[in-house]
Amino acid sequence: MNNNIRISYPSSEKMYMQGTIYPDLRVGMRRIMLTPTVKTVGGRRVAVENEPVVVYDTSGPYSDPDVEIDLARGLPPLRKPWTQRRHGTQMACARQGIITEEMEYVAIRENMNCEALGIETHITPEFVRSEVAAGRAVIPANVNHPESEPMIIGPAFLVKINANIGNSSSTSGIGEEVEKAVWSCKWGGDTLMDLSTGTDIHETRERILRNSPVPVGTVPMYQAFEKVGGRVERLSWEVFRDTLVEQCEQGVDYFTIHCGIRRKNVPLANGRLTGMVSRGGSIISKWCMVHDEESFLYTHFDNICDICARYDAAISLGDGLRPGCTFDANDAAQFAELDTMGELVERAWAKNVQVFIEGPGHVPMQKIRANMDRQIAKCHGAPFYTLGPLVTDIAPGYDHITSAIGAAQIGWQGTAMLCYVTPKEHLALPDKEDVRTGVVTYKIAAHAADLAKGHPGAAVRDNALSKARYEFRWKDQFNLSLDPERAVEYYKTSNSVGGKYCTMCGPDFCAMRISGELEARGCDLGVKELKGVKGS
Amino acid sequence: MNNNIRISYPSSEKMYMQGTIYPDLRVGMRRIMLTPTVKTVGGRRVAVENEPVVVYDTSGPYSDPDVEIDLARGLPPLRKPWTQRRHGTQMACARQGIITEEMEYVAIRENMNCEALGIETHITPEFVRSEVAAGRAVIPANVNHPESEPMIIGPAFLVKINANIGNSSSTSGIGEEVEKAVWSCKWGGDTLMDLSTGTDIHETRERILRNSPVPVGTVPMYQAFEKVGGRVERLSWEVFRDTLVEQCEQGVDYFTIHCGIRRKNVPLANGRLTGMVSRGGSIISKWCMVHDEESFLYTHFDNICDICARYDAAISLGDGLRPGCTFDANDAAQFAELDTMGELVERAWAKNVQVFIEGPGHVPMQKIRANMDRQIAKCHGAPFYTLGPLVTDIAPGYDHITSAIGAAQIGWQGTAMLCYVTPKEHLALPDKEDVRTGVVTYKIAAHAADLAKGHPGAAVRDNALSKARYEFRWKDQFNLSLDPERAVEYYKTSNSVGGKYCTMCGPDFCAMRISGELEARGCDLGVKELKGVKGS
Repeated sequence: MNNNIRISYPSSEKMYMQGTIYPDLRVGMRRIMLTPTVKTVGGRRVAVENEPVVVYDTSGPYSDPDVEIDLARGLPPLRKPWTQRRHGTQMACARQGIITEEMEYVAIRENMNCEALGIETHITPEFVRSEVAAGRAVIPANVNHPESEPMIIGPAFLVKINANIGNSSSTSGIGEEVEKAVWSCKWGGDTLMDLSTGTDIHETRERILRNSPVPVGTVPMYQAFEKVGGRVERLSWEVFRDTLVEQCEQGVDYFTIHCGIRRKNVPLANGRLTGMVSRGGSIISKWCMVHDEESFLYTHFDNICDICARYDAAISLGDGLRPGCTFDANDAAQFAELDTMGELVERAWAKNVQVFIEGPGHVPMQKIRANMDRQIAKCHGAPFYTLGPLVTDIAPGYDHITSAIGAAQIGWQGTAMLCYVTPKEHLALPDKEDVRTGVVTYKIAAHAADLAKGHPGAAVRDNALSKARYEFRWKDQFNLSLDPERAVEYYKTSNSVGGKYCTMCGPDFCAMRISGELEARGCDLGVKELKGVKGS
Repeated sequence: MNNNIRISYPSSEKMYMQGTIYPDLRVGMRRIMLTPTVKTVGGRRVAVENEPVVVYDTSGPYSDPDVEIDLARGLPPLRKPWTQRRHGTQMACARQGIITEEMEYVAIRENMNCEALGIETHITPEFVRSEVAAGRAVIPANVNHPESEPMIIGPAFLVKINANIGNSSSTSGIGEEVEKAVWSCKWGGDTLMDLSTGTDIHETRERILRNSPVPVGTVPMYQAFEKVGGRVERLSWEVFRDTLVEQCEQGVDYFTIHCGIRRKNVPLANGRLTGMVSRGGSIISKWCMVHDEESFLYTHFDNICDICARYDAAISLGDGLRPGCTFDANDAAQFAELDTMGELVERAWAKNVQVFIEGPGHVPMQKIRANMDRQIAKCHGAPFYTLGPLVTDIAPGYDHITSAIGAAQIGWQGTAMLCYVTPKEHLALPDKEDVRTGVVTYKIAAHAADLAKGHPGAAVRDNALSKARYEFRWKDQFNLSLDPERAVEYYKTSNSVGGKYCTMCGPDFCAMRISGELEARGCDLGVKELKGVKGS
């Protein structure tokens, strides 16, 4: 394992913003430095400064040269002093009117530097508190994962993305998975799910947790299933409970648990084209059928909540009956499970446990809205966390794209977090490059949704990049992009590097250059300064 | 130049469907052969056949082993006998109540084999005629491009995609561009635009036309601009007219002409962040400013129509004032041009010239619908042909994805053709692999829109692929996909090839396998036959 793993971005500096309620808070951001615009004024060349652009930063201490990184020891326990002096979960505090450190942290983080830019924002620490109190937003933050930087999942905030990592029995080692975790943070992943099902499942998770600056989720059923040798009939509440406690102790921030599957609803999946496609869901369904009993995840739901409350771990209600193809979308099985989840949300809240709802899967575009609407109607405003959805089934190898199309739409409609899909979906376990492609693709979907929702300051980066593009400040264009390395790589395939054109159009046909010449002739095309351009 | 270029698809056969009105018509399709489903019934293994899936085929004679390919000679002139015995354009015939060979051809083509599957369809030759007569659909088919197979562009039909090819002065030769053209047809490109701006512009176009089984579009201003040495002030109607006639003679099926830019509207682009980003648009705008005159493309629009009518070439009204960034979307300049286009549509129709309208560009999601609605309101139902739109500006290197998100939405809302964007957009000229990625990405967006619109039989391929996936018929899953080669390549990175799982979940956690085991226990998950699954 490379013990000195680092994250760097070109022409970027790590900066910290301070808290007001909690002056000790230091909220990490990334400041992208820009080159000046060079103009000819009265025959003289004048350089006009372009302000740096501050962007949301998921890279944690890995991008701070002042922090020593030691993967064996783990990241600094940022949140330890906060959790030590606190009693009760984020939700309990919120309901008592207490603004926690995490709440102020996420309020600062969500706004980037929009106040300095004169952009109005609805996101205050008090607003964060009220959203958490109402259950409309979740701050997944296990007290035993003090290394994680607070983030928030809710429709009133930036749309978040999750990256799945983890090995299966046939592939990859611990070092590789930790590398993937940090790699995901580099490209903008907001949370990680460790879906390991192989050997060393406990130790893999431990290394990921100690080195992850973002919340980590798991599906505890996978480890429980390993413990009984993969024999469904030997599964039990006790095995599951012990596994849950074990993972809470380690610091897992949220658990996907398929509590919404009920014995009576399994046969609703009859007549499906692709049966069940959720691993956890198919295991508990088989358990129900083999034992002819109600699911212990349902009957013991209150016990699950009690355990989660002790550690302030959140529950992600897994959709075990999600459709595995567009044909099965929005069927009775899927919607029955969603209705059950609505009931469970209220039971979780009664225990001060934060909860969100997982959603499909495969859904053709015309059926996406019905999912979002039903989720809102049935689940009392608890945040929605969807996988994609994929809007067609015919493109294996490109399912990051089929799903990003659906993800952008459902994000705009109110889904709070999008679970990424990589190009290898349906085919193989993603490697590091697939993680990069999946994360960047989902940052695009999430950002498109943020723009559409009018998130304060979301358009600042777009506008700065567009201005750089128009002014042929190529380096600034690359540095402002989601994946500067890829942009540079493609640009270098042309033979026009550094010129006022690219090979797409060639030198004589560059519209932006001609447009610039029109300006020089007195046509006022192109803004002279970014006044009014800052907002969305 | 490889003179024996061929297109092949795995486990696929070329098939032809016959006409009824014109029994000589042979409409090429691709039939994907499937392996049987193997089941255990009463302890015995039984093989149940899976019907072949017939899909829309843009590969033309290149995928027919019975046709000799000779790039030097060009493709067989399929439409020559039809155009020789006909007078008037497709639109003129349609208005006289005449169903042309092209109209019956596209009716058969659009339906794939849905009648044989018992799927109802609204698409008859008479329906095609009525849509062409009303101007709501365009069959771009220059009488001098008899090699092209008829296709239709209109909101009541399958959403089409265009691939831009062509060199710029700095890159690539003729052979390479012809290879890209055939390559685009292989992956599903419905039309090609040759945007060459370099030397050999006439000969490049000639080789593409003679070897293209799909309609070819151009921007004639590019060649006119080359003819005057790239000096805007020397441009004139006469130079443009001669270029247009030259290209009509060669057989160009549709022309992008920026007739919607008017002298008085150019200053509406004042205050934009990125000025003008259309090459043709910026050239004619500069001409207007330099000469302080109305655009000759506008003043001579009727002459342009007269020329196009002689060859039955269609006009694609180019949007020279389209936004080059999300900030500039839906501004006064863009909408003023759209309004002018509405006026021009009626003038084209008065001359029996088919016409469609080009659209943006860069548009954030919340502003897409306004584009489509305004286009419908102002342009009398003429088809819309959009570039993307890109829903964010911050992802150069991934703009095939940022734009596919917008393209799928606007396609669903009624855009008839989507102009692809490749990963190299904004950075460099696309190479062959970029063309493949761009075309497949746009096939995804178009197909997602077809599903959402409920096009007859659109879901057949999705359902067949999903069934293959559930039954672990890996080969069938790959062969039914948009890019079988890519799917196989990714699958082979796993070490589970041929098994009843993939490395994503590993053998013990495959939900589809567990779901199958549930079935074996008497749970009726997964359909037994595709009854009722055929339709959308």
